[in-house]
Amino acid sequence: MSFKPIDYKPYDFANRRHIGPSPDEMTGMFKTLGVADLEALMEETVPQAIRQEKPLDFGKALSERELLFHMREVSEKNQVLTSLIGMGYHGTVTPPAIQRNIFENPAWYTAYTPYQPEISQGRLEALLNYQTMVSDLTGLEIANASLLDEATACAEAMTMAQRVAKSKAKAFFVDENCHPQNIAVMKTRAAPLGIEVIVGAADDLDPEAVFGAIFQYPGTYGHVRDFTAEMTALHAAKAIGIVSADPMALCLLKEPGTMGADIAVGSTQRFGIPLGYGGPHAAYMATKDAYKRSMPGRIVGMSIDSHGNRAYRLALQTREQHIRREKATSNVCTAQALLAVMAGFYAVFHGPKGLRAIAQRIHRKTARLARGLEEAGFTVEPETFFDTITVDVGLFQHGVMQAAVQQGVNLRAVGTTKVGITIDETTRPATIEAVWQAFGFARKDVDRTQVYRLPEALLRTTEYLQHDVFHMNRAETEMMRYMRRLADRDLALDRAMIPLGSCTMKLNSAAEMMPVSWRAFSDMHPFVPVDQAQGYAELIGDLSDKLCQITGYDGLSMQPNSGAQGEYAGLLTIADWHRAEGQGHRNVCLIPVNAHGTNPASAQMVGWKVVPVNCDENGSIDLEDFAAKAEKYSADLAACMITYPSTHGVFEETVRDVCRITHEHGGQVYIDGANMNAMVGLSRPGDLGGDVSHLNLHKTFCIPHGGGGPGMGPIGVKAHLVKHLPSHPLEPGVGSVSAAPFGSPSLLPISWAYIQMMGGEGLTQATRVAILNANYIAARLSGAYKVLYKGKQGRVAHECILDVRPFADSAGVTVDDIAKRLIDAGFHAPTMSWPVAGTLMVEPTESETKAELDRFCDAMLAIREEIRDIEDGKIDRENNPLKNAPHTVEDLVGDWDRPYGREQGCFPPGAFRVDKYWPPVNRVDNVYGDRHLVCTCPPMSDYAEAAE
Amino acid sequence: MSFKPIDYKPYDFANRRHIGPSPDEMTGMFKTLGVADLEALMEETVPQAIRQEKPLDFGKALSERELLFHMREVSEKNQVLTSLIGMGYHGTVTPPAIQRNIFENPAWYTAYTPYQPEISQGRLEALLNYQTMVSDLTGLEIANASLLDEATACAEAMTMAQRVAKSKAKAFFVDENCHPQNIAVMKTRAAPLGIEVIVGAADDLDPEAVFGAIFQYPGTYGHVRDFTAEMTALHAAKAIGIVSADPMALCLLKEPGTMGADIAVGSTQRFGIPLGYGGPHAAYMATKDAYKRSMPGRIVGMSIDSHGNRAYRLALQTREQHIRREKATSNVCTAQALLAVMAGFYAVFHGPKGLRAIAQRIHRKTARLARGLEEAGFTVEPETFFDTITVDVGLFQHGVMQAAVQQGVNLRAVGTTKVGITIDETTRPATIEAVWQAFGFARKDVDRTQVYRLPEALLRTTEYLQHDVFHMNRAETEMMRYMRRLADRDLALDRAMIPLGSCTMKLNSAAEMMPVSWRAFSDMHPFVPVDQAQGYAELIGDLSDKLCQITGYDGLSMQPNSGAQGEYAGLLTIADWHRAEGQGHRNVCLIPVNAHGTNPASAQMVGWKVVPVNCDENGSIDLEDFAAKAEKYSADLAACMITYPSTHGVFEETVRDVCRITHEHGGQVYIDGANMNAMVGLSRPGDLGGDVSHLNLHKTFCIPHGGGGPGMGPIGVKAHLVKHLPSHPLEPGVGSVSAAPFGSPSLLPISWAYIQMMGGEGLTQATRVAILNANYIAARLSGAYKVLYKGKQGRVAHECILDVRPFADSAGVTVDDIAKRLIDAGFHAPTMSWPVAGTLMVEPTESETKAELDRFCDAMLAIREEIRDIEDGKIDRENNPLKNAPHTVEDLVGDWDRPYGREQGCFPPGAFRVDKYWPPVNRVDNVYGDRHLVCTCPPMSDYAEAAE
Repeated sequence: MSFKPIDYKPYDFANRRHIGPSPDEMTGMFKTLGVADLEALMEETVPQAIRQEKPLDFGKALSERELLFHMREVSEKNQVLTSLIGMGYHGTVTPPAIQRNIFENPAWYTAYTPYQPEISQGRLEALLNYQTMVSDLTGLEIANASLLDEATACAEAMTMAQRVAKSKAKAFFVDENCHPQNIAVMKTRAAPLGIEVIVGAADDLDPEAVFGAIFQYPGTYGHVRDFTAEMTALHAAKAIGIVSADPMALCLLKEPGTMGADIAVGSTQRFGIPLGYGGPHAAYMATKDAYKRSMPGRIVGMSIDSHGNRAYRLALQTREQHIRREKATSNVCTAQALLAVMAGFYAVFHGPKGLRAIAQRIHRKTARLARGLEEAGFTVEPETFFDTITVDVGLFQHGVMQAAVQQGVNLRAVGTTKVGITIDETTRPATIEAVWQAFGFARKDVDRTQVYRLPEALLRTTEYLQHDVFHMNRAETEMMRYMRRLADRDLALDRAMIPLGSCTMKLNSAAEMMPVSWRAFSDMHPFVPVDQAQGYAELIGDLSDKLCQITGYDGLSMQPNSGAQGEYAGLLTIADWHRAEGQGHRNVCLIPVNAHGTNPASAQMVGWKVVPVNCDENGSIDLEDFAAKAEKYSADLAACMITYPSTHGVFEETVRDVCRITHEHGGQVYIDGANMNAMVGLSRPGDLGGDVSHLNLHKTFCIPHGGGGPGMGPIGVKAHLVKHLPSHPLEPGVGSVSAAPFGSPSLLPISWAYIQMMGGEGLTQATRVAILNANYIAARLSGAYKVLYKGKQGRVAHECILDVRPFADSAGVTVDDIAKRLIDAGFHAPTMSWPVAGTLMVEPTESETKAELDRFCDAMLAIREEIRDIEDGKIDRENNPLKNAPHTVEDLVGDWDRPYGREQGCFPPGAFRVDKYWPPVNRVDNVYGDRHLVCTCPPMSDYAEAAE
Repeated sequence: MSFKPIDYKPYDFANRRHIGPSPDEMTGMFKTLGVADLEALMEETVPQAIRQEKPLDFGKALSERELLFHMREVSEKNQVLTSLIGMGYHGTVTPPAIQRNIFENPAWYTAYTPYQPEISQGRLEALLNYQTMVSDLTGLEIANASLLDEATACAEAMTMAQRVAKSKAKAFFVDENCHPQNIAVMKTRAAPLGIEVIVGAADDLDPEAVFGAIFQYPGTYGHVRDFTAEMTALHAAKAIGIVSADPMALCLLKEPGTMGADIAVGSTQRFGIPLGYGGPHAAYMATKDAYKRSMPGRIVGMSIDSHGNRAYRLALQTREQHIRREKATSNVCTAQALLAVMAGFYAVFHGPKGLRAIAQRIHRKTARLARGLEEAGFTVEPETFFDTITVDVGLFQHGVMQAAVQQGVNLRAVGTTKVGITIDETTRPATIEAVWQAFGFARKDVDRTQVYRLPEALLRTTEYLQHDVFHMNRAETEMMRYMRRLADRDLALDRAMIPLGSCTMKLNSAAEMMPVSWRAFSDMHPFVPVDQAQGYAELIGDLSDKLCQITGYDGLSMQPNSGAQGEYAGLLTIADWHRAEGQGHRNVCLIPVNAHGTNPASAQMVGWKVVPVNCDENGSIDLEDFAAKAEKYSADLAACMITYPSTHGVFEETVRDVCRITHEHGGQVYIDGANMNAMVGLSRPGDLGGDVSHLNLHKTFCIPHGGGGPGMGPIGVKAHLVKHLPSHPLEPGVGSVSAAPFGSPSLLPISWAYIQMMGGEGLTQATRVAILNANYIAARLSGAYKVLYKGKQGRVAHECILDVRPFADSAGVTVDDIAKRLIDAGFHAPTMSWPVAGTLMVEPTESETKAELDRFCDAMLAIREEIRDIEDGKIDRENNPLKNAPHTVEDLVGDWDRPYGREQGCFPPGAFRVDKYWPPVNRVDNVYGDRHLVCTCPPMSDYAEAAE
């Protein structure tokens, strides 16, 4: 050895930590592929015609330490005051055990949506707990597994009401006491669907004039009112009644179900989910049993496995997983699973007594606050309330607000003369005294004869959370073990590759995740004065700039909370521009037949007509058909929606033609960003001719999937569209698609961290390696499986489709059998039957090592041999490792009456030996579950039964 | 329902979260025990004579949120500057993936010491990686699994040298370039053992005069020097050569082994372990193969299981686990497992190339710093260095130091005219420029022709970290999965009760753990100016006050890093007091025969003579024998050491007599605090007559065991002893026992949080429930097992001893068989064969629920039935579920040729069904492992072999 500096960069996050294959591994992969190097593979894969001109350049990539240092500096520009602003956002105590064991535990946050129930029993149980909680608190029979935020939940309830109401009225009534952001989002949603939104006082409701009505409970200014009469009147008019209710208030107050509400929605944020400057939070929806098949979102239900044991799975999946394309009226295809799990656990932690006690404390503190103000001579509105009061201070509105800020407290400005104050679980006595100070008087104690200011008639009289899980021993030891047991039942990225096509399950690194828990990011109310959120402003500004550089767009909106929301927001933006251009009549949207199902659903939501375009045998857009249809609908062409590279995993060389043709006919081009992980640094949708794209930050930019949400789907647009982007929900403008101005901002540090630690070259390298990994899998499997679509030079992009349809005939083996057999090898299945029925779509991402890819390929090749054994008649078509998959410990313990050994059954190639993942149930029966729909925790008697 | 406030405290940490049994469960337990309530049980258990007068009162207990709020305020009183103080403590980058997945993961931090290898394979592998790293870097054959801190490691090396040296000399040479705290601790250790410590320049070493010598490498002022000549000279004189080396420097510099060193010690802190104001950190020790049986501490080694598969376990346990009582020369019985695991993972993360690159960067930055100073005219010492330089600034020492503080940088004052500067992995260019500023000049760039200032002759020429694990793919995805796999192999508190007698494995709550990760606690150098550590001062002060109130003592030292260190420090304190009283000759220590093995070992370490005292058949001190021996040794009686309640789990009513007799004869009373969990709030050792006690904060006060460390063993003393407590290692005084003035202060937030969230009544209730839980187990098992020792009214204290000796004859079943069978039921075994051979000692703690206790009792009762089947001849004595335990998946997959079924074998009562813990190996063969000792990762060829 000598003084010579070693050629090794220990803090190189991109190549050392994020990208899976090591240089040595890559060399081996090049050999398998028969290419000289990565650039040679790119030459064969990514057409020069679509390459971007200049390499991405964000300066020097940061190390993890530098990133955290920088991130901390930025975070400190946020000023965390105590916010008593309310409006559906409240301080809350996240139990530390939940924060550590769920929110900060990769076993929970790196999991995928539980479509494969056998490897998802843990989070399915947690989500069932959540649904039971929602159903109990609202007094309605069935709840879904969460929606994006309260405002979109209101909008979903509105459109659902339209679907199920027998009334033929076209208008929808919105209580003026609804939170303003809820009203804003409903208005946005209503306009293109031709729904007239009537905002007014509940007393002015004309039931005959509407197909439905929504009321806020408690109202945004604090009013608590019984809506039973309104519900009765609506029902008489065959209209639907909706209540948007605070679940904490429901611990004390009469529940919507008892009032007769058909649908209840709301936010579970105050059940232990940090404020996060607006999100992510889990919104809920519950409805009557009669309407369950019309409810949007995912629903967890009970079923049985092949041994007849109880098992959970997503219910009614045909309704949910496959968005009904042109017939859709909702494009909801995600939930806030991680946050719903947390909210459910908050209820498990506290139980009904604990929740009631917390609600009472909140109310008593509010009563104390009010009493103090009254004793000082102020008039408090309303007379009865739960946690929110309003005080008219005339000309002193600004003065009181400012004085409060001086005391470290944010209040709400209501109108021009009033101040709103909302109390929560975290409010300390000193804070109430500080508010009094802001009102100009000092007080320590108040008359306590009247500590309850709830209307007696509205007190809740029904029990809730009676199920065992809400009455388990709540010692932290027991809670910690329960969380661990559930986590262990699931297979997430912390144990194995999740090669889901189109889902980009890449590394969510610890350094990226850490700042999300920092107070300066997590404890901010979405409607604090902007000068308190300078850190967020810098983060959002810089991240937007960088995403624009990556995509070739000129402006960006962070508002959409999912990819589907991004599509919807993007189309709204285009529609608004057409209107501004005097082309408001344009309403035709061209969409290739292999598009993501959300594409046509989103077009539907903006009131457009979907015209499908054919694809050729290679899965690429049939350019002739495209041109013909553009021509045919030229006068009305609003837009086309395409995915690039295509959903078939191919870089179509004609993409520029498609864009040109669309523009020639006056349309705008929407490029779906689902496959952006194949483009970053190599090609920019904005350069190809795109006018709008959404980015799935939870795919391409490292936000974890959280077991089925959160997500973020910001949209980038060309300059001419910037002023047509969604507007702030509390300000006039184009309209908003989410409750909070920046969607779910507390997730943004993740993507920002990723980009800064990768740098331009690192991001580009990630794209190249994602393509390398996919091609490596395609090459290794190509003898055994047909790779359905390839580019001109025989390469795939960042994912590949394996055709397993022939095995249905040859061996009676379905795509499901293969998926379940992969569980035995310790893998989550690839995407099944999409975009082509009977196929598997594999996307390994750049974060997987060659060793892990090989483990997967070994498993797939062994499965092919097992299929061959069936084909060759060596093993029975019905009783074989594929049909019996997945295998469990129960199989091993029981009698083994099978034509293959235990060893083959349980340890196929690819399976770890010592560290094998054992699924907790055998194959789950979906049909049984849908026939016997149970979507809340089963009654205790069932448990006793099962225990026997 | 009505307005009536509900009687439920949702934020009551003590009763709601920390204490396991719910009120309902407790009612059931009272019934089983035949007592009316908890107080009635206390009446039967804790003699009135020993009860404390006043209840504990710390005011209102804090909720988790209030605690974290308060803790944050206190933490903000610490000012975190950049410390370039060096002295063995360095800024370091903890890889975020290690922080999140190990440091903050209960699967790692709640684990116990890996004495049961079948449920500890994960951390045993991690520790073997660590040992391999130490062995490789130092160039010595064998390394242990870590020691408490570098200073105690130096002292251990000194006494080990005395044990193994053939030289008969009585003196020990200490290089004056050793860190001052190392010198201080060695001096403390040497004095009572009659070792003369000669501190001097290496050039002045007289090998003939010493049995050993230690050198610091690099020296504390930065010198790097080859000690080969010294080693040769020492060997010629039959003396032992020791090098205390910085492992980071060893990545570039010639290793101690090649110099001929017999022992190497040092700190691995800079391998990713936060500074923590001094600890906890893992110190290392490595030695030649010839001396392995004389090395203190735990050693992980390889062995095989009953199927012949490779398995890890603690090697040479007979040497380590059973401290050799009176013959001991070390009382070391703990390690810093969690920190050693982290340091080992740091090496796995970076690999040899990464470590070398990091070391080079550190050196280049130091060279740049030095060059800048030289260009400005300063003289930098030494001429060649690794990371530390010294500059003589004459009268400007204070000025430069202060100017640096103004720039946010702490430097080291060396002597009265010099300034020391040490660079680390985290040093940023701006910090170096700030140092230049502090020296009075501004500079951005320097001459870079000489970027290496290492002596060429000292460059390392050997390879290191050649084992596969240091060359695995270091993508974070792979690292995360490796950490998860290892965690999953182990059984820790996050999955099941660990009913270890005398170990008090209680809840380590998330709220208690969180502040440990806060920068304001974790990023503090132990020798920063005290005004920067006001937060720590407040924490330590208040915690000390509260612990004094709990124990009835008047003063406290936080310095000892383990219970054994506490004993040692306590006896030193007593000895110093005797000296001050003119009674320095007193050197007899009375210790009952059932004492913890560390008691006599500690007495030995202060140079005392141990006189054993008999116990009666109930395990209590034989008062007559005690009095007789006190009388006999009256003139020389230094102290007695007793444990209360006794190690047999009984509250002896004679404790006050024992104390009185001791005092009458001029002795002091040391009450071992191991069983303090049975006393807190009920009885105070200080009131009973104790003069000194140590407290195991990692038992009674919630610091997690970390898989075998860290620990904290502060001592409380009566007023007369306060000024004889250990002194600051850098200041004159009695002497110090640890490198850092407050031991491992970053753990203290845990105990402080616990006490504040419990409050006085909560702590007392915890004690009561700990006693309840133990008595409940004793009652449920008493028909099946004999409970060895009980108090007068038939009750046990907080633990109980089950006699399983009869089964050896009746069924050939050993305590080991039962322990391994408990693994099948999903439990860590109770303490085996201590304090009575052939018994099991069970301590459930207050944190376990009745449900978990019942699960354990069910398992134990079923085991009794299995034993009965053997006794009755129903099943073979050699081939039965006990002898074959634990059962693994391998057993299930293979041929099942056993006289009992798979179901019985794998799912005994107590075992979870779906969530069963599967041990990764079958029963481990300890004898094989000790005969074929391998304590570093096996060579790759072995792996290839095993894979076949």
